[in-house]
Amino acid sequence: MAAIDFWYEFASTYSYPAAMRIEECAAARNVAVRWRPFLLGPIFGDQGWTTSPFNLYPAKGRYMWRDLERICLARGLAFRRPDPFPQNSLLAARVATALEGEERARFSRQVYRAQFVEGLSIDGPDRVAGILDACALPPAALSRAGSAEVKDALKESVAAARKLGIFGAPSFVTGDGELFWGDDRLEAALDWAVAHA
Amino acid sequence: MAAIDFWYEFASTYSYPAAMRIEECAAARNVAVRWRPFLLGPIFGDQGWTTSPFNLYPAKGRYMWRDLERICLARGLAFRRPDPFPQNSLLAARVATALEGEERARFSRQVYRAQFVEGLSIDGPDRVAGILDACALPPAALSRAGSAEVKDALKESVAAARKLGIFGAPSFVTGDGELFWGDDRLEAALDWAVAHA
Repeated sequence: MAAIDFWYEFASTYSYPAAMRIEECAAARNVAVRWRPFLLGPIFGDQGWTTSPFNLYPAKGRYMWRDLERICLARGLAFRRPDPFPQNSLLAARVATALEGEERARFSRQVYRAQFVEGLSIDGPDRVAGILDACALPPAALSRAGSAEVKDALKESVAAARKLGIFGAPSFVTGDGELFWGDDRLEAALDWAVAHA
Repeated sequence: MAAIDFWYEFASTYSYPAAMRIEECAAARNVAVRWRPFLLGPIFGDQGWTTSPFNLYPAKGRYMWRDLERICLARGLAFRRPDPFPQNSLLAARVATALEGEERARFSRQVYRAQFVEGLSIDGPDRVAGILDACALPPAALSRAGSAEVKDALKESVAAARKLGIFGAPSFVTGDGELFWGDDRLEAALDWAVAHA
């Protein structure tokens, strides 16, 4: 079975529509999806950026909000602009790292829903506990998120992303190491995974 | 009839595949295309960039070359990487500005062909004269390109692009002022133009 790694960052705007459709798109092509939460902050930091490029470059930022609004509208996805942007995604990324398989995917979609549908913060133990509860997951992942093991695993994910040449999110990496960047490359990435499985 | 403004920069890599398909894609939807050559240099300069962001951010640059190679392969377009990159596009942009209608479009496609198919420089009067000749256009546009009128018209195009919120190329602007950025947004831009004509 063909497989794809889905690299996402909870504060990344275009990761939201990708997360909401990747399982359906992949299933239609019989491709397995491995959810890989990571942090863009350290990678942006390599480029000298201390916040999202959408904040650093206002024309690009204005365009992104409008483009995302159009994409969500066309796909029947609700959309609210997070405030502040970007959200602090560290705790949510650690909790996602502490989860596995379908539970990680379910939690991750719920983080995006909280942020972009309900317009809620995704930061702080109370909010993250609420997100776990909203998708019927036990609170234990929140305690595990504080362990050295999970913190290190997330750091290793960031290092792995950097090594793969990832510079933005969402990114998709096929089994043969081909990198695709952006929600708009999801179909191309899946097709590549199938053709080169 | 619905219409779209196609904003392109000759040194822009993703403008190449867009230029080679826009007329066919637009004709299929009965949308008229207005070719709008402009310069990204002054707009990048606003953001403090002195060269292409693909040079400033190496991971992004490496990805772009591979992505473009894949896109061209999938569409049956030849592809050679320009050297140096980015090319100096000022003279070619002035000549395109000095031309109109179908001649401007024909010359523009030939500039992309020279650069990305033949791997030639697009700078200097001799090269640009060769490009005019290769697409059966008289050399007169080259002399007109040096006139104050044409120089000012190109400056006005850059100012108009900036005012529209354009920050990259290719960009597409519909009659109702909706902005779309990137070759991968061409279909969405044309569909929007039809729906809001």
